[in-house]
Amino acid sequence: MNRYGPQVIALGEVMLRFDRSQRHTCAAPSLQVWEGGGEYNVVRGLRRSFGVWTAVVTILADNTVGRIVEDLILRAGVDTALVHWAPGDATKGRARTGAIFTERGFGIRSAPGISDRANTVVRGLRTGDIDWDAVFASGPRWFHTGGAFAGLSETTVEVADEAMTAARRHGMTVSYATNCRPESRENQGRADSAREVDLRLARHADVVVGALSLTGPRSGQATRIHAGEVSDILPHIAKLVPQASVLAITPHELPATGVNVCPSAAWSLPTGVVTHPPMPEFQVLEHIGSGDGFTAGLIYGLLTAADTLSEGLKVTILQRALTYGALVMTGAR
Amino acid sequence: MNRYGPQVIALGEVMLRFDRSQRHTCAAPSLQVWEGGGEYNVVRGLRRSFGVWTAVVTILADNTVGRIVEDLILRAGVDTALVHWAPGDATKGRARTGAIFTERGFGIRSAPGISDRANTVVRGLRTGDIDWDAVFASGPRWFHTGGAFAGLSETTVEVADEAMTAARRHGMTVSYATNCRPESRENQGRADSAREVDLRLARHADVVVGALSLTGPRSGQATRIHAGEVSDILPHIAKLVPQASVLAITPHELPATGVNVCPSAAWSLPTGVVTHPPMPEFQVLEHIGSGDGFTAGLIYGLLTAADTLSEGLKVTILQRALTYGALVMTGAR
Amino acid sequence: MNRYGPQVIALGEVMLRFDRSQRHTCAAPSLQVWEGGGEYNVVRGLRRSFGVWTAVVTILADNTVGRIVEDLILRAGVDTALVHWAPGDATKGRARTGAIFTERGFGIRSAPGISDRANTVVRGLRTGDIDWDAVFASGPRWFHTGGAFAGLSETTVEVADEAMTAARRHGMTVSYATNCRPESRENQGRADSAREVDLRLARHADVVVGALSLTGPRSGQATRIHAGEVSDILPHIAKLVPQASVLAITPHELPATGVNVCPSAAWSLPTGVVTHPPMPEFQVLEHIGSGDGFTAGLIYGLLTAADTLSEGLKVTILQRALTYGALVMTGAR
Amino acid sequence: MNRYGPQVIALGEVMLRFDRSQRHTCAAPSLQVWEGGGEYNVVRGLRRSFGVWTAVVTILADNTVGRIVEDLILRAGVDTALVHWAPGDATKGRARTGAIFTERGFGIRSAPGISDRANTVVRGLRTGDIDWDAVFASGPRWFHTGGAFAGLSETTVEVADEAMTAARRHGMTVSYATNCRPESRENQGRADSAREVDLRLARHADVVVGALSLTGPRSGQATRIHAGEVSDILPHIAKLVPQASVLAITPHELPATGVNVCPSAAWSLPTGVVTHPPMPEFQVLEHIGSGDGFTAGLIYGLLTAADTLSEGLKVTILQRALTYGALVMTGAR
Amino acid sequence: MNRYGPQVIALGEVMLRFDRSQRHTCAAPSLQVWEGGGEYNVVRGLRRSFGVWTAVVTILADNTVGRIVEDLILRAGVDTALVHWAPGDATKGRARTGAIFTERGFGIRSAPGISDRANTVVRGLRTGDIDWDAVFASGPRWFHTGGAFAGLSETTVEVADEAMTAARRHGMTVSYATNCRPESRENQGRADSAREVDLRLARHADVVVGALSLTGPRSGQATRIHAGEVSDILPHIAKLVPQASVLAITPHELPATGVNVCPSAAWSLPTGVVTHPPMPEFQVLEHIGSGDGFTAGLIYGLLTAADTLSEGLKVTILQRALTYGALVMTGAR
Amino acid sequence: MNRYGPQVIALGEVMLRFDRSQRHTCAAPSLQVWEGGGEYNVVRGLRRSFGVWTAVVTILADNTVGRIVEDLILRAGVDTALVHWAPGDATKGRARTGAIFTERGFGIRSAPGISDRANTVVRGLRTGDIDWDAVFASGPRWFHTGGAFAGLSETTVEVADEAMTAARRHGMTVSYATNCRPESRENQGRADSAREVDLRLARHADVVVGALSLTGPRSGQATRIHAGEVSDILPHIAKLVPQASVLAITPHELPATGVNVCPSAAWSLPTGVVTHPPMPEFQVLEHIGSGDGFTAGLIYGLLTAADTLSEGLKVTILQRALTYGALVMTGAR
Repeated sequence: MNRYGPQVIALGEVMLRFDRSQRHTCAAPSLQVWEGGGEYNVVRGLRRSFGVWTAVVTILADNTVGRIVEDLILRAGVDTALVHWAPGDATKGRARTGAIFTERGFGIRSAPGISDRANTVVRGLRTGDIDWDAVFASGPRWFHTGGAFAGLSETTVEVADEAMTAARRHGMTVSYATNCRPESRENQGRADSAREVDLRLARHADVVVGALSLTGPRSGQATRIHAGEVSDILPHIAKLVPQASVLAITPHELPATGVNVCPSAAWSLPTGVVTHPPMPEFQVLEHIGSGDGFTAGLIYGLLTAADTLSEGLKVTILQRALTYGALVMTGAR
Repeated sequence: MNRYGPQVIALGEVMLRFDRSQRHTCAAPSLQVWEGGGEYNVVRGLRRSFGVWTAVVTILADNTVGRIVEDLILRAGVDTALVHWAPGDATKGRARTGAIFTERGFGIRSAPGISDRANTVVRGLRTGDIDWDAVFASGPRWFHTGGAFAGLSETTVEVADEAMTAARRHGMTVSYATNCRPESRENQGRADSAREVDLRLARHADVVVGALSLTGPRSGQATRIHAGEVSDILPHIAKLVPQASVLAITPHELPATGVNVCPSAAWSLPTGVVTHPPMPEFQVLEHIGSGDGFTAGLIYGLLTAADTLSEGLKVTILQRALTYGALVMTGAR
Repeated sequence: MNRYGPQVIALGEVMLRFDRSQRHTCAAPSLQVWEGGGEYNVVRGLRRSFGVWTAVVTILADNTVGRIVEDLILRAGVDTALVHWAPGDATKGRARTGAIFTERGFGIRSAPGISDRANTVVRGLRTGDIDWDAVFASGPRWFHTGGAFAGLSETTVEVADEAMTAARRHGMTVSYATNCRPESRENQGRADSAREVDLRLARHADVVVGALSLTGPRSGQATRIHAGEVSDILPHIAKLVPQASVLAITPHELPATGVNVCPSAAWSLPTGVVTHPPMPEFQVLEHIGSGDGFTAGLIYGLLTAADTLSEGLKVTILQRALTYGALVMTGAR
Repeated sequence: MNRYGPQVIALGEVMLRFDRSQRHTCAAPSLQVWEGGGEYNVVRGLRRSFGVWTAVVTILADNTVGRIVEDLILRAGVDTALVHWAPGDATKGRARTGAIFTERGFGIRSAPGISDRANTVVRGLRTGDIDWDAVFASGPRWFHTGGAFAGLSETTVEVADEAMTAARRHGMTVSYATNCRPESRENQGRADSAREVDLRLARHADVVVGALSLTGPRSGQATRIHAGEVSDILPHIAKLVPQASVLAITPHELPATGVNVCPSAAWSLPTGVVTHPPMPEFQVLEHIGSGDGFTAGLIYGLLTAADTLSEGLKVTILQRALTYGALVMTGAR
Repeated sequence: MNRYGPQVIALGEVMLRFDRSQRHTCAAPSLQVWEGGGEYNVVRGLRRSFGVWTAVVTILADNTVGRIVEDLILRAGVDTALVHWAPGDATKGRARTGAIFTERGFGIRSAPGISDRANTVVRGLRTGDIDWDAVFASGPRWFHTGGAFAGLSETTVEVADEAMTAARRHGMTVSYATNCRPESRENQGRADSAREVDLRLARHADVVVGALSLTGPRSGQATRIHAGEVSDILPHIAKLVPQASVLAITPHELPATGVNVCPSAAWSLPTGVVTHPPMPEFQVLEHIGSGDGFTAGLIYGLLTAADTLSEGLKVTILQRALTYGALVMTGAR
Repeated sequence: MNRYGPQVIALGEVMLRFDRSQRHTCAAPSLQVWEGGGEYNVVRGLRRSFGVWTAVVTILADNTVGRIVEDLILRAGVDTALVHWAPGDATKGRARTGAIFTERGFGIRSAPGISDRANTVVRGLRTGDIDWDAVFASGPRWFHTGGAFAGLSETTVEVADEAMTAARRHGMTVSYATNCRPESRENQGRADSAREVDLRLARHADVVVGALSLTGPRSGQATRIHAGEVSDILPHIAKLVPQASVLAITPHELPATGVNVCPSAAWSLPTGVVTHPPMPEFQVLEHIGSGDGFTAGLIYGLLTAADTLSEGLKVTILQRALTYGALVMTGAR
């Protein structure tokens, strides 16, 4: 057995995250530095909270910024052997690593954030750049990607498709998270294709997280639903992605700090719709990454339960997913 | 008299600067945040160390990053009334504020730095974007710009030219610093034109700092000269920029931390070449911005000495310039 | 048009504020440094949260302490062109800048504070020290002062009177905040005259904030009133200050952290008494400056609404005032 | 035996010291907090570096500022049982604790400092306020005071005299440090009496530190002497204070950071003048308190050497004094 | 009267406590350092919050770790004259100072902690090591120890017994807190004797805190009781420790952060059972040390009320104890 | 090819390192946290400075302390797949992770350090605990261990022997660093066997670092030699360890901060003794780990030079080793 190979591999963008603390609205002299990115956060959570060996496939600019991100990935315990490096002459504008600037809110004061993702090197990834057979040669069990990455450019959709196809060929379980935001695609001038991207890729997945994004009037945004509607909508969505064994709704509907967690739900063919009761008086410290935390918990649950995909999703697995998503919101990283 | 108007106005780029302290090479969890930029540093120094009211003309992206930079400019005491704001949707890649990542060195360990300046909004500035007559209406006495800004793009050269011409029309003294780095122009595919840009703009200036850049074998880089050559070279350069009253050589030739300051020199027609002796055992804490500090000291000296430009440069003025440049190198900001 | 002139000018004391964070009750090795002062906080809030160009008229000792305060004012974006400087030889006791030491509370643990304001230079300000016609020459629209400043000494009352009179002469709108604390006047031996000061100066104002202080049994302290009494009391107070167009009650009655905001109220002749419903579950991080934040919001509302003073106060303006006061209490600075 | 009694007691002022670190010249958001004061520093050094149980007699204002100082004295290990507390209503200007604001220099950039000591409560100390017999009842062996305290006001001279007299009556060894600065006395209008104060009090002392202050053209300042002059001057000074057994010269003549320590010297009747060679390449991190450190080392040496005062000062004792003064300059606190 | 002697003396272990702040779960680069220990916390609280002069009897290893602990005890204001020092060659494993690593929780995320107390020097304390008559010679009024210390080893039980006996012989009031944790004794292989230790020592005490530990099915753990049972259980326990005048129940039953404080209760013969109503909406920042805070408040109440022990416990004293315990939970240290 | 396998594997102890910064000698409220250990530092340096994939074989206690160390190893980029975990009930004293407390010096003030290594879990490692064939199965090229680990206990010598033998069996190059400190062995009562341990294990090594320890009058300590003696001593030592291809002398002889690096030297059969000139004016920030840095540089040089071991050591390789050791001393980590 190869003791060094990761169990779960994600494909996605990893950005620098700069964080202002609560009071320093005025000329903060130092910023906390984190790393983040939708798909990456999932394998980060699997490593840090569940002890699963994971790796991320991404590309970084080979300069100070990219190396800071590498250090932060190492710090999180995620394997960096699959990180690609682009020549990093950022001055010439050829290779950048993305950044997000966030601020923590308090009560009625919201937590603003802005991303600085123009011309990031990851947008230029093309099919053929990554040798997926080599990536999957060490025998990982699970592959995860999502719309946050796929929606970055014309070529990243193709890379995600290529990777999911290869992962299935290697007999891995494949999951897809649909948090493709229309505004990031608008850049490429085809905002209306966000739904299309999610649907195309979700059809390669065994597990689809954020399934509500696959339907509804506005593409690219999770539909806020009422508890009563869930049992109707999920089976309907299941027909759009017939090979998916599990569909899940992330708790993105969470209102602001201090308010209760809305009910969450998932579906699998053997069990039908499974829901989880809300947690009253749940305190939120941090909203960013809660959906990714939910996904990490869900994958861990499905990875460790024997025969889960055939038997379907049990309430305990959904519970674990929600609990980890909730822990992320308490500031656990 | 208008008590609110700035005395000195600079045109340039202002970037975020992230600073790692000495020991945190490994996964630094927080970064010090500063603002900087060649031409801006000059008016910053004039305000903070000499108490001269100054303003900067620049353009920032109207988002969290740009507003952090505004806060930092305010903190430095430089007037922000002349800052232009571009719609800040950084996600779409249309407007970015540049960033530099630096690390402090120690002894034989050098201080690496990398800039992240692809697609910065300032590169898109065009002639006509700024109403220079309005900018100069409040009666400032001095205008400063330089090759760091002018060399950013095809259009910024034109904007610098337009601004210098307007400043002269308003009777202001105009200074120009030639630190145009070829690599930043290479982006536009014409590295060989760096010298050309510097020469074209220096011809509009009363005071030229970094005059060695106007000659020599390699364009865009200060030539390291020996003390003996100065008295020959400066009069030669003066012929290239006949309307300039003062030419100065910045102490860019400074070797690494802890080593002595090389001799510096300047030239004016009435006085000829003026030199300053080296400072033995001078300790350097910070190299970045020393040339800009030198320029600030020089401008202050010329601004406060009566009839300086006609009488020529005195050694005391060069001394003040060098001292302030040196103070910047001790970490005074 | 003069692009450099402030829209709103305040007259008041600016002090250093030292802040202990929550847990360091024991031998805190470092203290957070802020600047503050009742009237100044109003123009600070107008600048930072509403983007209005503001300036403060004050006097600081010209030494390290005063220069730290200047830096902090600059950092906040408030114009320092109107700051006067007293020779700062603090050793001789002739010029001091005041200081406040605060500590953040938590739940049932209160947030103690103590001011160190003996012999502050601002107490010695006299009529004639400031050339008000020069101050108002740039065309500001609004002047604000209050009892926190006026109550400092025998002479500051006169300076406030002089300034308000000049502002009215220049056609500006004048506001006055009555938070004159009796203990700071007791120093001068005439604690009973606090009410008298407030009344005398409020009569020069178009807008009076903290109007409850103008009546009631104990001078110098806001009377805590019940919702039902407001509609009776405000019209009664309006008769005491006949030229005032708007009277407002600050939410000083706010109980401790975590408890709901009490109703607030204001009055104008055309509209009569206007009230605002409480905000349930409002979380308070910081009590200091909430009344000043309320005043900033109120001024901004009145400044931006056309014909407000003639039409009277609308509920939306009171709402904005309360919201900003509330934001201050969430730690937004 | 009483295990709780201090061995050495000092009488002096204790102030808050705020320290800016090297680079934060601009709007430093937090300040390091220390406590300090000439005479206090001596007992602080004796406790922290030599493990001698010490106490300080002083008076603090009983408010947040005074209590922060108390915490800092406790942190240093100096006994606070002899601290007197004045009612601390600082608003009324009746009781203040002094403060000093310092900044660390680097190379050619000097380290500015300013004290904020107007109206400090310690200036109002009068004879009779302290029951010296009670203070000395626990059997301490050494009493130390100096001109920094005695020079504060008309009454503190008397208090120092009263204390020294009582200490001698209790059979204790008494030391006096003459760093009375004329500018702090000028406040009281009699700058020329600084020398007089030092001479009057030094005559009560067994050990006088800073003996050069007792002579020379300018009162209140240490005279910089050359090595060759020492053997002439010290015996001359000894005649001015006939009951003193030991006279010492503090290394106040130390030039700026990084430069060598000048020779230091002391005198006692049995041994005559004793000198100590300079330490080449000695690096200085902190100048403040080096003379006090020297005094602490000297007292420790004399306290632990049997029969020192009768036998006279040995070179090893002077060496220890210099070494500890030097250690203080390396930042050891 | 001896002004240097402590009023209350505790015997216990003092450990280093390392604290991770809320968000730095991942590779925290620095840890907050505190000192703590059950019995010590009581005298620490008495000093810091009530101003009572206190001392701790303990033993520390004479090396860097032990000296950091000494500094922290000094910082808290607790007298260190009674600290014993063991030769500190930690490399040889002969003398260690214990350490605790804690992390602050948030909402549903709990606050984990782990102690590193193997081979701590305090476990080796033996009867005869401490001269209790010398310790008590200065005339302290109260002695406190508890099961946290006594349960450390075979020999610490004997030392606690020896100390309590000596304290009673000196006429002091003696208190005992029963928070003996079985797991720390299991180390010595006799987990079942925890109850026995508590009972044996509680019989020497006038005041027993944590009285519920003396009874119930599981030894060594506080029994969670319902309000109704208190009046029955306490008189029953009183019979087990007939010489105790006061028995108290600590609020250890406190649920997690943000939830209300359970009722607390105490008993004395003259008054019978006294209870205190719960505090609704009480916010908890810190759980560690709340029981010790309660004990400090209780001792202060009994120490300052005249003839308390004979008159019995009044509700106001219980109230003070609870309030201080509660304040500790708000982060007041 | 297996892309996940490490190239270099070290066997050693990894400890927590707590670091006080320069000025906080007094009650430092927070400590910097690092990880360290002689053999581990070598693979850490190879990963961080040379980009070589490395892993460490060690055992940690499975509790908060051990997990902090794991996080720090991850942060450094060293693979943790080979870390063994002992049940971490530190309360019972069965498993501890070692700690070191250090303080940075300045000039004449030295940098004290104390280790807290009693009962660390790594001392209990026994032959058979680690399956070396599994460890080496992934095809690493180099194995490193040393006397710091081997000298910990009776059993760690055997584990080191077992590992080196297995590494040679797998065809790996084996290096050994002899920094066995006698005091850590004294614990086991056989200080005189330190030399014996080093000699026994060095005989399994291809490369021996710290070769001077193998000879001389005092065992377990590097002999300080003069430049002239090197060419005599190294060939003599080479006879003691006949299978070693390279012997090196670490720059442990380095004097204190700021003084020049002494000459260093190495030997290989084909080249004989190779020396490196001293670096004048070399500034030292940090002494800890310089020898380990030297070893990392040496291994990197030998690993990347083709046929190095047969051709012998070239001066460039020694130079690289010295440079990296020197960089470590500038604070690069």
